[in-house]
Amino acid sequence: MQITARELAHFLGGSLEGNPDITVSQPSKIEEGGEGTISFLGNPKYESYAYTTTASVLLVSKDFAPKSPVSATLIRVDDVYASIARLLQQFGQQAKPAPGISETAVISDEAMLGNQVSIGAAVIVEAGAQVGEGAIIMGQAYIGKGAKIGPNTLIYPGARILDRCEVGRNCIIHANAVIGSDGFGFAPREDRSYEKIVHVGNVVIEDEVEIGANTTIDRATMGSTIIREGVKLDNLIQVGHNVEIGAHTVIAAQSGIAGSTKIGQYCRIGGQVGFSGHVEIADGSQIQAQSGIAGNIKEPNQAWFGSPIIPYRDFIRSHSVFKKLPELYKTISRMERELATLKAPEADQ
Amino acid sequence: MQITARELAHFLGGSLEGNPDITVSQPSKIEEGGEGTISFLGNPKYESYAYTTTASVLLVSKDFAPKSPVSATLIRVDDVYASIARLLQQFGQQAKPAPGISETAVISDEAMLGNQVSIGAAVIVEAGAQVGEGAIIMGQAYIGKGAKIGPNTLIYPGARILDRCEVGRNCIIHANAVIGSDGFGFAPREDRSYEKIVHVGNVVIEDEVEIGANTTIDRATMGSTIIREGVKLDNLIQVGHNVEIGAHTVIAAQSGIAGSTKIGQYCRIGGQVGFSGHVEIADGSQIQAQSGIAGNIKEPNQAWFGSPIIPYRDFIRSHSVFKKLPELYKTISRMERELATLKAPEADQ
Amino acid sequence: MQITARELAHFLGGSLEGNPDITVSQPSKIEEGGEGTISFLGNPKYESYAYTTTASVLLVSKDFAPKSPVSATLIRVDDVYASIARLLQQFGQQAKPAPGISETAVISDEAMLGNQVSIGAAVIVEAGAQVGEGAIIMGQAYIGKGAKIGPNTLIYPGARILDRCEVGRNCIIHANAVIGSDGFGFAPREDRSYEKIVHVGNVVIEDEVEIGANTTIDRATMGSTIIREGVKLDNLIQVGHNVEIGAHTVIAAQSGIAGSTKIGQYCRIGGQVGFSGHVEIADGSQIQAQSGIAGNIKEPNQAWFGSPIIPYRDFIRSHSVFKKLPELYKTISRMERELATLKAPEADQ
Repeated sequence: MQITARELAHFLGGSLEGNPDITVSQPSKIEEGGEGTISFLGNPKYESYAYTTTASVLLVSKDFAPKSPVSATLIRVDDVYASIARLLQQFGQQAKPAPGISETAVISDEAMLGNQVSIGAAVIVEAGAQVGEGAIIMGQAYIGKGAKIGPNTLIYPGARILDRCEVGRNCIIHANAVIGSDGFGFAPREDRSYEKIVHVGNVVIEDEVEIGANTTIDRATMGSTIIREGVKLDNLIQVGHNVEIGAHTVIAAQSGIAGSTKIGQYCRIGGQVGFSGHVEIADGSQIQAQSGIAGNIKEPNQAWFGSPIIPYRDFIRSHSVFKKLPELYKTISRMERELATLKAPEADQ
Repeated sequence: MQITARELAHFLGGSLEGNPDITVSQPSKIEEGGEGTISFLGNPKYESYAYTTTASVLLVSKDFAPKSPVSATLIRVDDVYASIARLLQQFGQQAKPAPGISETAVISDEAMLGNQVSIGAAVIVEAGAQVGEGAIIMGQAYIGKGAKIGPNTLIYPGARILDRCEVGRNCIIHANAVIGSDGFGFAPREDRSYEKIVHVGNVVIEDEVEIGANTTIDRATMGSTIIREGVKLDNLIQVGHNVEIGAHTVIAAQSGIAGSTKIGQYCRIGGQVGFSGHVEIADGSQIQAQSGIAGNIKEPNQAWFGSPIIPYRDFIRSHSVFKKLPELYKTISRMERELATLKAPEADQ
Repeated sequence: MQITARELAHFLGGSLEGNPDITVSQPSKIEEGGEGTISFLGNPKYESYAYTTTASVLLVSKDFAPKSPVSATLIRVDDVYASIARLLQQFGQQAKPAPGISETAVISDEAMLGNQVSIGAAVIVEAGAQVGEGAIIMGQAYIGKGAKIGPNTLIYPGARILDRCEVGRNCIIHANAVIGSDGFGFAPREDRSYEKIVHVGNVVIEDEVEIGANTTIDRATMGSTIIREGVKLDNLIQVGHNVEIGAHTVIAAQSGIAGSTKIGQYCRIGGQVGFSGHVEIADGSQIQAQSGIAGNIKEPNQAWFGSPIIPYRDFIRSHSVFKKLPELYKTISRMERELATLKAPEADQ
């Protein structure tokens, strides 16, 4: 995308100072800049860069009063951050594949494809699968038997949506994610080997959900593993069988949730967190990275830390004493000796 | 699969009460039920659901004496749980792809395929690879040069079995797992950069093993990384080069095992556990989630927790004091002051 | 590769004792050996195996003086380890795919392929992508729009190099790695749902870098996520948007780095380590496995441990007291009672 400063100012409803014909092709950070880029001054802390940036166009607040000459063409807007978000969306949209079906895709006659879908090369769509209107299935992705992909959902290369799993509308499933692997369930035999428990359930992902690259979501033993509306999962996350994640909860990379655990709505969960199976987590819980949760969290909207978790502030306090433990140990040893002396003054002195 | 209550009762060797012609197509949980499903009452705690469930058929113990009317058709069996396992297996089997070789699979003339194999679309089977009788290689999987896949083994979409790696019979390799990536071995050069150590070994996976989605198993530097009979690995696990995992050991998701470590038989290892390289773990060890193991475990059948690990019970006790550390710190400070007073009574009083 | 002892001795510049016509096809460990293998005696600890090994050829130091008969043909060299490294490289090189382009690869007319490239089956190379001379793109890999792959770089099956990402020369990207997934960035809306922040940046991987299997590297919001020259990343690692990893830093499996964090050069980072976003890590930092880093590390070349980290030695000391906490707790309780007694002797005695 090549776009002139004039067009950008019009698109953003801003006013222009400088060369209206200068073109940009991508956004940049103000400290990096570069010819042909549009940068922005959002945080006043970065103001000095405004006078040195090599960006062709600079987005500033309508109230910005330069203290030195600025070489970039200025576009003044009401809300710099809102304008950036609009710009990023605009630049990002260019990348989407056009509708159409690759000749090398292998699509079952018994699959149902909506209007305006885009199906990339080497994609497999199995019998009974449904792909909603405007959905994009990028190259090398897999849509299993009876799986459903909602309208306008985007599936990246190498993602696997296995048999009978369902993905809602406006979702994004990133590359190499696996939706619908078997749950990790085995029944011990008498000889201490294990019998596989067949998993006949599925995974249901509601609307507006994003699933990160190489994340795995296991299907339910029976019923469904459920990812509610608006949930955002980062990369390399493990979601066990029959788990339910409440609406608008966000989970950072490499966290894992064991089978049948139920996480509430609006939770914010850090990276590398682990949840035991069969626990319930209250709405709005905030869990610090690397924490471990082995029991229910009943009180909503609390912050937690540690493995096993304790309240966040308590952890910080306990950890600050943990750092002093060797010193504390010496203190106690000294006190013990002193106490012994005090108790038996006759013998010692 | 559509099956009548009469057929189900016959299949399970149970006796029938109610409509023998009602059909079901899938199992359900008793609290979820649903028309066209078969549910079960295993745990008496759930008895109340028997009177309200909307399942078409309900599997109960032969001794079940209803206290209220039950609308579902009943099938009475000797052992409810064993019947469920048989049912799940029956419903699950329907999903398996039929034997046959996709036209879009790319199979080397020098590969050897057994009878009744199923090879999906866009699969690659390289020269010298062998696929055993009845094995199923689902779409988009990769079987490298000289790799061996045992009879009746199931390889899910996107799994990569790299050159010369061997998978036994009746194994399941889940989607996007990687078997035979290079070990992480580098020799430091004088300029502090690293020289790659070429890994010429392979991975050997014995019979009845299950490998989770997106799990990675590195090949040996020389010799083999070995996964013994009956081992079950969950999703997103890392197994380093030259590791050996003993028979019938189970490991939960996101655990990692560094190079040359040897884990015994019948171990049960939680999620997100980390093992250092070159350690040995005794048979039957039980390791709690998120633990870290940096040394050998010599005594078999013990439980461990923490990072670094200590015996499980000791960890629980130490952690319960960890929670009280701030309070303990204050106590000690107070005691110090009191001691000082007692030691120097003349000066203070 | 079948090679005679005579040829090997010549290749390694060593002297030969025994049968010069015996052939070997692969290296082995001295304790495993096997006919048709070449093994080595590097560490004197293993000398006893020299007299029992079944390897056909044994590589030893020129000074090796056998105390018993050795059945293997000996090759004496100046530096056993350097010779092994050369041998492993030699045996390993045989495996590389020959140049050529598979008929089933889907390559855009607008892609640019260098000389002597090898492109495997079912590979996708999108419009505007560039593949450098001698690069190997193995089967089922994905090279996105405008992506650049440097000369002699090796991309394993199922790796995804997404739009506009750049990989330098002599790199190795292992199977199912994802380069260029979206960063995990969302702006909270007033109704507590999340708006996706479009990521228009890319990933830049410099020369001589190795990226492990199933590792994910997110693209920058704007600008680039940067992996500097010579970095080695193990399997299942998460690298967030706008992260920078300094030259010749090595990171073990399952570690995660949140957005905008900057890691220095020559760092050595263990497995399952977690970094918060927006922190800076000094050159040469050594971080123990499972540690958590929430703040800057300013002093270079220091060792760290714990979650949150403290200096390595301090952690070891604190952890050794942690193990004694229950005992310490009892000691303190006893001391409290004794102190109370000492303070009020009249009342108690």
